[in-house]
Amino acid sequence: MSSFTAGVIVIGDEILSGRTLDTNSNFIAKKLIDAGIELVEVIVIQDNKKTIIEKVLNYSSKYSYVFTTGGIGPTHDDITSESISEAFELNYEFNQKAFEILSNYYPKGEFNESRQRMAKMPAGSELIINPMTAAPGFKIKNIYVLPGVPEIMQVMFTELVKTINKGNPKITRTINTDLYESKIANHLKNIQNKYKDSSIGSYPYFNLTAKTGGVNIVVSSWNMKSVQPIVDDIVDMIKLNGGKSSIV
Amino acid sequence: MSSFTAGVIVIGDEILSGRTLDTNSNFIAKKLIDAGIELVEVIVIQDNKKTIIEKVLNYSSKYSYVFTTGGIGPTHDDITSESISEAFELNYEFNQKAFEILSNYYPKGEFNESRQRMAKMPAGSELIINPMTAAPGFKIKNIYVLPGVPEIMQVMFTELVKTINKGNPKITRTINTDLYESKIANHLKNIQNKYKDSSIGSYPYFNLTAKTGGVNIVVSSWNMKSVQPIVDDIVDMIKLNGGKSSIV
Repeated sequence: MSSFTAGVIVIGDEILSGRTLDTNSNFIAKKLIDAGIELVEVIVIQDNKKTIIEKVLNYSSKYSYVFTTGGIGPTHDDITSESISEAFELNYEFNQKAFEILSNYYPKGEFNESRQRMAKMPAGSELIINPMTAAPGFKIKNIYVLPGVPEIMQVMFTELVKTINKGNPKITRTINTDLYESKIANHLKNIQNKYKDSSIGSYPYFNLTAKTGGVNIVVSSWNMKSVQPIVDDIVDMIKLNGGKSSIV
Repeated sequence: MSSFTAGVIVIGDEILSGRTLDTNSNFIAKKLIDAGIELVEVIVIQDNKKTIIEKVLNYSSKYSYVFTTGGIGPTHDDITSESISEAFELNYEFNQKAFEILSNYYPKGEFNESRQRMAKMPAGSELIINPMTAAPGFKIKNIYVLPGVPEIMQVMFTELVKTINKGNPKITRTINTDLYESKIANHLKNIQNKYKDSSIGSYPYFNLTAKTGGVNIVVSSWNMKSVQPIVDDIVDMIKLNGGKSSIV
């Protein structure tokens, strides 16, 4: 386990109705791995104040970092900022700096009441800058609040992740083999038992038309300096069982 | 709210590392909407027995139906069946019918110990048939246990969903407009307040290069016979504000 952990809260009815495929948590997951932060859980919840409050408090106490996506726009169904204020019993108020950024961004007369709502957040928040469409995210306690639109979220997160405390990156190596999973399952289990400080994942794939398939074996560790001995053991084991292997 | 609710538990380190984009929950979400079942929560968790037990028990008590994906293959990291047995204090044992199906599927001599593991499940489980690669899923209590490989999961779920109790399908209509979200936010809020038994979602999109954009407004209801009056109100409101609208 990494010394830094994270949880992601995806807020939005549109994900739960199947209308939108969530790709934000996958983007965040990849960046966190590189940053040495272990993503432990992702949850997708409805636009519901009570649920947002409950999950934000729960994740805030469990993980080093919490990232939320969605629900910070100008409409009535955007209730993330208000809910997080309530969760921590903080005033939900205009952030002066956010107000200025938005006020400068919109043409004169177009910074209307709905848009002004995007400058409201929990008292004491630090802004997360949005270089694309101005409306900022914010950080309060260990919660980082981001928008749901992927193009905008990705640009903001990429900058954000550079600024937070990190652990050592996870070491990962992937070995591909043409052997079926069941053929190597017992051997893999033995190798896993030999190296307790690593995680060995086995991901089969099938080409159902060609009736062929194989396995990607992913070896990873947060703590070991190198996973080469494990990779060597697996490659030898595959050879002994008459299979081909390649490092991918 | 529908009279039938659901939660999805996605089990797999490969999702949390960002290696694999989860598309299973999106597929399930769409099918559930059509079936009149409200998907309330999706959670992605690690291959960890304690976590699986905790979430399965929690979801089982909260929702009408629980669907899990992942972790039912032949390798050491496939611990879903074992964990669910433990959650309900049921024997983790060979299912006779599953054993026969798998034994008939594999060529003589190839139904090895690892593959036999795929026939083990909680005592009293009902099988969920897998027409592609034989290894079945299972139902125990209100938990439906499915594989993680999307091609296989999809075929199994499509058949499965026909067999379960359903509510009335959710009625959904989508209106597109070229107006910006902030221009219509207050009006939408008023329309939402007028029709409490529906949910009005506002989903902006941006073409950042062309500096254009618009909003998809999604009107939905589990209980109303028709959402046409709401659609009419929204179309009128868009016109009054100088925008174009179309039903998509």
